[in-house]
Amino acid sequence: MPRIVVDVMPKPEILDPQGKAVLGALPRLGFTGVADVRQGKRFELEVAEITDAVLADVEKLAETFLANTVIENFVVRTDA
Amino acid sequence: MPRIVVDVMPKPEILDPQGKAVLGALPRLGFTGVADVRQGKRFELEVAEITDAVLADVEKLAETFLANTVIENFVVRTDA
Repeated sequence: MPRIVVDVMPKPEILDPQGKAVLGALPRLGFTGVADVRQGKRFELEVAEITDAVLADVEKLAETFLANTVIENFVVRTDA
Repeated sequence: MPRIVVDVMPKPEILDPQGKAVLGALPRLGFTGVADVRQGKRFELEVAEITDAVLADVEKLAETFLANTVIENFVVRTDA
């Protein structure tokens, strides 16, 4: 079944406590060389077929429901 | 700065209550035509440069720290 992916990430100017927590834990775990971590959400939506109408629906859905556009950006993609 | 993306998704055989909650809300919001929703996490790691050693490090990091491999699959990607 075709899959549409919606990536939702905190906007760059927004504090990301989850990402910061991961970043802070890395040196203790022995991982160096990572400068920054941002954590967001990934939604995989299975649809019957991918058409312009379906994509427009998903775009609307992402904007109104999956992402909080005050603090988050989203991207709708049709690749895996 | 180059970015490495780690996608962490619940394994297909694992119940995904967050995804199910989204799926259940869609008809009430007027969206039809979505057959299934899975919700996972997306990590964006900024690194100084992308080398095989760094990628191996991130792979290890994803396996031991970002994903719970009992219930989640992960993919490490170098594209945006």
